[in-house]
Amino acid sequence: MSKFKSLPGFREFYPEDFAERRFLFQVWRQVARRFGFQEFDGPALESLELFKAKSGDEIESQLFCFEDKGGREISLRPELTPTLARMIATRANSLKRPIKWFSIGDNFRYERMQKGRLRCFTQLNADILGESGPAAELELLALLVQLLQGFGLGADDFLIRLSDRNLWMLYLEALGFADKSAAILEIVDKWERISEESATEKLVGLVGDSGSSLAGSIRAFLEVRNLQDLKTAFESASEEAAEGSALSERLDDWNCLLDGLEAMGIAQFVEMDLSIVRGLAYYTGFVFEAFDRAKENRAIAGGGRYNGLVRKMGGPEMPAVGFGMGDVVLADLLRERGIMPQFVDTIDAYLVIGGDSERSVALADASLLRQSGFSVDYSFKNQAFGKQLKAASASGARFALIYGSEELENAVVKARNLSDRTEQDLPRNQLPLALRDLLA
Amino acid sequence: MSKFKSLPGFREFYPEDFAERRFLFQVWRQVARRFGFQEFDGPALESLELFKAKSGDEIESQLFCFEDKGGREISLRPELTPTLARMIATRANSLKRPIKWFSIGDNFRYERMQKGRLRCFTQLNADILGESGPAAELELLALLVQLLQGFGLGADDFLIRLSDRNLWMLYLEALGFADKSAAILEIVDKWERISEESATEKLVGLVGDSGSSLAGSIRAFLEVRNLQDLKTAFESASEEAAEGSALSERLDDWNCLLDGLEAMGIAQFVEMDLSIVRGLAYYTGFVFEAFDRAKENRAIAGGGRYNGLVRKMGGPEMPAVGFGMGDVVLADLLRERGIMPQFVDTIDAYLVIGGDSERSVALADASLLRQSGFSVDYSFKNQAFGKQLKAASASGARFALIYGSEELENAVVKARNLSDRTEQDLPRNQLPLALRDLLA
Repeated sequence: MSKFKSLPGFREFYPEDFAERRFLFQVWRQVARRFGFQEFDGPALESLELFKAKSGDEIESQLFCFEDKGGREISLRPELTPTLARMIATRANSLKRPIKWFSIGDNFRYERMQKGRLRCFTQLNADILGESGPAAELELLALLVQLLQGFGLGADDFLIRLSDRNLWMLYLEALGFADKSAAILEIVDKWERISEESATEKLVGLVGDSGSSLAGSIRAFLEVRNLQDLKTAFESASEEAAEGSALSERLDDWNCLLDGLEAMGIAQFVEMDLSIVRGLAYYTGFVFEAFDRAKENRAIAGGGRYNGLVRKMGGPEMPAVGFGMGDVVLADLLRERGIMPQFVDTIDAYLVIGGDSERSVALADASLLRQSGFSVDYSFKNQAFGKQLKAASASGARFALIYGSEELENAVVKARNLSDRTEQDLPRNQLPLALRDLLA
Repeated sequence: MSKFKSLPGFREFYPEDFAERRFLFQVWRQVARRFGFQEFDGPALESLELFKAKSGDEIESQLFCFEDKGGREISLRPELTPTLARMIATRANSLKRPIKWFSIGDNFRYERMQKGRLRCFTQLNADILGESGPAAELELLALLVQLLQGFGLGADDFLIRLSDRNLWMLYLEALGFADKSAAILEIVDKWERISEESATEKLVGLVGDSGSSLAGSIRAFLEVRNLQDLKTAFESASEEAAEGSALSERLDDWNCLLDGLEAMGIAQFVEMDLSIVRGLAYYTGFVFEAFDRAKENRAIAGGGRYNGLVRKMGGPEMPAVGFGMGDVVLADLLRERGIMPQFVDTIDAYLVIGGDSERSVALADASLLRQSGFSVDYSFKNQAFGKQLKAASASGARFALIYGSEELENAVVKARNLSDRTEQDLPRNQLPLALRDLLA
């Protein structure tokens, strides 16, 4: 036991935990690179102002923020996107578009801890900047699907709910509530968590008596699952809006995106579901979240379009869309489904050393074998053969290489296969080659 | 340009910078695993008390420390070792010894910036716990050598200076200054940076008139380069100490370590040099630092034995030795030597798409090829063939796969090798296989 503890919401990763972590990162990286995304990273610590510029002053209550020794107001990053937007803004003129970037890094939020929510978590971020059309959303949704498939999750396990803040704006405008849209969407965002009655109450509080009919219209919109339903909802709201060019243009985007999902063979993973509005006001178009089908966990991933942010950071107009996927919910889900692989550390060879007179030869070979790319271990102390063979097995070694006086006299080492216990002599003067053949 | 900047001493990694970073991490990981080290990680944020317990209250002046919203005194970690020691202390009974662990992570220090020193840097830590003999030092020195060799550095490029705080203690005792050893070693630590005169002055201030003869004895000790020199130095200090069992036992450790370095073929990388004392009082035996031979940079890596720390963290007695290697000095050195590889992002194929009628077929194939493990990109917009081929080249693709109407009528795609411009048709119904053959 130690007299010290890690802080609440922060994790330690012992080697067996780290192996899971490495697996998550490997799949994230591999799949993102298949899609032609390039990896980048930014600082974990930034000026507080950067985060407020994106999310408003309220964000401060969730931050690990403080004044540094030089009097700067700084904060650990709660998310990567503000840093990304600044980096893009800084080099907007020299970066080739579309920009397809991903990053894997830690984020820090001072929040109440719950299942799936810690104070430090690692997140994959994938973003496409410089493309305003729905081809960017298509690419990100395809990436999201293949990422989850990469972990062994299938159509029975997860669903991406696809929504659109543009459609909400058009709909609220059609209903005559354009001026209250931000406040209304905040209520919609909580719709699933609070009862419909209490949502209606809030709407009445916001817009007066028409709040209860607004609640009915919102409920109808939340039930939309395809473009036909959508048309119907708009027709009940306003004939004029239903036939307007704004809606028709937006429907073209939807058709393009849905056709792309069909073409890529991933339509079954994505459902139109306008209940996703993603609280944050900075989203400007399509938004989406991936959930496990059983809905037992928090969202596995979420994102959307945020066209205004790069400009807000001092850069040029730059369309942008992206998503984040955290490690906590994902790892919980893989464990629940029983598909988190079991990791066993292995090495190629463990040297079993007779005694002082054989040690220098064994050390020379250990050095040579490692230099040749093999993973090799050995006992630091002179010990009985039996004890060393036990350590060899415990180390996960595939072979024990035995350095006894007899072997060395014959210029060989004895290789024992630790799973089937077969043995054979390997010539010391060609040891790397011989071991390679044995391992193959 | 952006109106925001990153904090002084913190870096942004654009994809081309990140590629260098990935290279460093890859070599670190690969070589550490060859040596049978297991990767772990700990939180970047810890209680302030943890760091003070290791380094004393003075450390606070170098920390990014603050009070969190729950009133906890916390700090970004300036180093990983206190966390490591806590983790080991917590599970000391269940961990198999020797424990060989490594980690790659960010550390944060509020320091004056200089060449090679930033406020956030990434460090490889490698530690062996549970082994008290010099076999652990040997293993770490061998790892350090192969790590640097892994980056293409050779015996002309770097040197490890090996020293020993035990020898210093014995020597200062032999000279009659055992009670002032800590303060004297602090002066020795600065010896190379301040003039000998000013060091002598400090010694006189500390021990009175005998300070100037002490300075002479220290100079003699600093010139020791082998065990013969060492004996001579001890003989001039005190006949009794020179023949005592404490020195003789320590010389056995040195012989064992030096023999091991010979056996492993790495003696030429390591020089006995007692000028390394590594300021921090917590080291208890051998200490070492790796430098570039030209000594133009700060230390590339440094470490030593710290047997008391796990117990200090509330654990049992646990011998420990380790080193850290930061990314800043290392990357500077590789760049100066011209051996930092140039990284060019490549993908396997870029799909060149005729128009809307070919797009859905191309999207289906992009999805299939990525699922099969190929890295694939394509233009989000309909563009002229020439423009798309240019984008294909710019993307680093090895092949452009051309989806024209004629090709699709014949159930093929045309593959253009973007380096030699040869072309051949690939059957669409066996595209992954055909592309694999082409890339091989």
